[in-house]
Amino acid sequence: MKYLNTQSPDFQAELKALLAFETAQDPKIDQIVADICADVQKRGDAAVIEYTNKFDGTAAQTFADLTLSQEDLKNAFERLPENVQTALKTAAARVESYHQRQKLESWTYTDEDGTLLGQQITALDRVGIYVPGGKAAYPSSVIMNAMPAHVAGVPEIIMVVPTPKGERNDIVLAAAYVAGVTKVFTIGGAQAVTALAYGTETVPQVDKITGPGNAFVAAAKRRVFGVVGIDMVAGPSEILVIADGSTPADWVAMDLFSQAEHDEIAQAILIATSQTYLDEVKTAMDKLIEEMPRRDIIEASLGNRGAFVLTKDLDEACEIANYIAPEHLELSVENADQWAKKIRHAGAIFMGRYTSESLGDYCAGPNHVLPTSRTARFSSPLGTYDFQKRSSLIQVSEAGAQKLGKTASILAHGEMLTAHARAAEFRLKD
Amino acid sequence: MKYLNTQSPDFQAELKALLAFETAQDPKIDQIVADICADVQKRGDAAVIEYTNKFDGTAAQTFADLTLSQEDLKNAFERLPENVQTALKTAAARVESYHQRQKLESWTYTDEDGTLLGQQITALDRVGIYVPGGKAAYPSSVIMNAMPAHVAGVPEIIMVVPTPKGERNDIVLAAAYVAGVTKVFTIGGAQAVTALAYGTETVPQVDKITGPGNAFVAAAKRRVFGVVGIDMVAGPSEILVIADGSTPADWVAMDLFSQAEHDEIAQAILIATSQTYLDEVKTAMDKLIEEMPRRDIIEASLGNRGAFVLTKDLDEACEIANYIAPEHLELSVENADQWAKKIRHAGAIFMGRYTSESLGDYCAGPNHVLPTSRTARFSSPLGTYDFQKRSSLIQVSEAGAQKLGKTASILAHGEMLTAHARAAEFRLKD
Repeated sequence: MKYLNTQSPDFQAELKALLAFETAQDPKIDQIVADICADVQKRGDAAVIEYTNKFDGTAAQTFADLTLSQEDLKNAFERLPENVQTALKTAAARVESYHQRQKLESWTYTDEDGTLLGQQITALDRVGIYVPGGKAAYPSSVIMNAMPAHVAGVPEIIMVVPTPKGERNDIVLAAAYVAGVTKVFTIGGAQAVTALAYGTETVPQVDKITGPGNAFVAAAKRRVFGVVGIDMVAGPSEILVIADGSTPADWVAMDLFSQAEHDEIAQAILIATSQTYLDEVKTAMDKLIEEMPRRDIIEASLGNRGAFVLTKDLDEACEIANYIAPEHLELSVENADQWAKKIRHAGAIFMGRYTSESLGDYCAGPNHVLPTSRTARFSSPLGTYDFQKRSSLIQVSEAGAQKLGKTASILAHGEMLTAHARAAEFRLKD
Repeated sequence: MKYLNTQSPDFQAELKALLAFETAQDPKIDQIVADICADVQKRGDAAVIEYTNKFDGTAAQTFADLTLSQEDLKNAFERLPENVQTALKTAAARVESYHQRQKLESWTYTDEDGTLLGQQITALDRVGIYVPGGKAAYPSSVIMNAMPAHVAGVPEIIMVVPTPKGERNDIVLAAAYVAGVTKVFTIGGAQAVTALAYGTETVPQVDKITGPGNAFVAAAKRRVFGVVGIDMVAGPSEILVIADGSTPADWVAMDLFSQAEHDEIAQAILIATSQTYLDEVKTAMDKLIEEMPRRDIIEASLGNRGAFVLTKDLDEACEIANYIAPEHLELSVENADQWAKKIRHAGAIFMGRYTSESLGDYCAGPNHVLPTSRTARFSSPLGTYDFQKRSSLIQVSEAGAQKLGKTASILAHGEMLTAHARAAEFRLKD
């Protein structure tokens, strides 16, 4: 872990260096992905089956071998131990309840001359959810991607998940079942993304693709963006904890670990107002690391990108948080709700000592797909609103056309767009 | 204009061909932009001044020569004729009023065990508005880009607009004045986009860049995306008119022209339920084209990409509209509000014979920056919401941590993320 002190003259430069992260795209990966994309567009199902057998070590003959029905998902759910079933259902229900409050509603109003203006909200017709396969199988990610689409009213939610060597993960399929997924194809990589974006004989074309994936998936998503919508291509996961010393040091230590255990490039930063507290957390970390199965990853992550920051007060800590615009911000302080009002940029704000980030990751209700790498300055968590869109509604009355027509005519002539002006003038009575 | 008939067996293929549009990026432009980007990041103000003098034929010595204040904008406004001043103010006020209704508000709720959940809405700190310079100067575009940011509460709105040969356009600067722009730099191209994205000694770094531009600007926006937010990179403008024959043919003809006059690759399509009406509109177009100053552009656009589509009824017309997902959809029909309910995908819906698209372009209230090229399937008009973002709020109570902790622990162990599980378990009492 690095040590930073806001009183140091080099603090700003050190902070900037700490946050720096190279996200250059790999041209080799781009080329492989371009070839796969072109091939899947050209040959459809046959190409997807070939790439799947090649990359995932499967032996699919037809697309039926790569297709799971609602029934398959239900069976996966029913094979799970009851406590896991209950945990999945509890998490899904809480996520559903929170996301219902995000639902956009249509509205209209009529102004004094009878002109109606408004906004019509519609759901996307069909979306694709990408779920990584293999070891790093995250059922929580299935719930967090599929549930907002389900709540938005998307009629068809198509999930793709590769099954390396044909191995299906029951808990992932069960999560799809509780989150309202319509259909699952056991495909992955650039071939799955392309199939969803353009459609094949079997895979229907979707309107948006969300969900995390490896570098090939990310490159494929960037490539198809515009043909379909995509969510943000996420950077490494991050947590910033601001502590006033009132939370047990063990708890904060474990919260930092829970970010660091994701991977070697995750970032965990603790800002505290006292050196004593920073030392206590450090001591707790040294003790707790012993019992961590992912110790190597945690140590690599904290060694590479972790930091303790000593700040003079909580106001300054909030200013630093606004600069960092962290994906996850824990305000592990007294009166956390008051301090939250000073936060302008963060993906999610976890307030108070009982709110470990992990509760939010799984089941508090809000989404765990959050803006990373300072993008919380301009973007939001994944939500119901990402699976809805707006159409402007304009119904100008005859009386309204008289007033608006004159204004539009003047401005259109100012832009030398005569047909625009004439179209407005045609609607004038005199 | 092409003629399509939904009864033809080739209709779907013909429609697909009509909509096809090649949007490949030019690698030469990308390379030029990459070099400019790198140079501006390295040398800041000096590089921006050099590129501006070179590309815009100006003779700026310092950045002060490229900077306009609020006072300069006000003076530009005051130099305009009174009717133009009034038109700008009327348009700005209507756009402001509509966009106020789009403003997102924070919300929270507390569940039965005292856990608080919610969503905190904040404005972006600083945004950049790109405005093209030269001949194609569109004050309406300034209002449509800057006003939503202003309504969202963005404290600083920085506009960039190139001034080829030093020529400033008063109506564009006046539009910036009425739309709440904070400061203007008379710079453009990739150098302006890079300066806004990374900041220079004089140009402050923004959080998002919106507004239209040429191929260099579009390439620069794609390049800086992620460092800052951007709006969509727009394709050619389009209109789809659905007519039941109740609107004077002249009016519909001029509405088609008003789209076609934008440029040679704009697309204007008319769907009607009777061949007679299509013929009437064609006759009206042949007559009205004579009086159009932009006749060449209109003819090129309609020749390249325009079409008349004969449909069997309005239900079928709405289905086609949903496939096309047009940027602008005119429902020039009786009871347009009823038909609008059948539209799932469109940027803006103009209902009834008095609602020419041009009224919406300038002053009805809704935004004229709309999703093009079928992206209305998954995206929305530019709005106030594009200049606000959400942070999830989670404050788990001690009681809440007992319930949530057990669920989180089960799921975290299921994902083999022990630190996640332990962080939740630490908050359990027993």
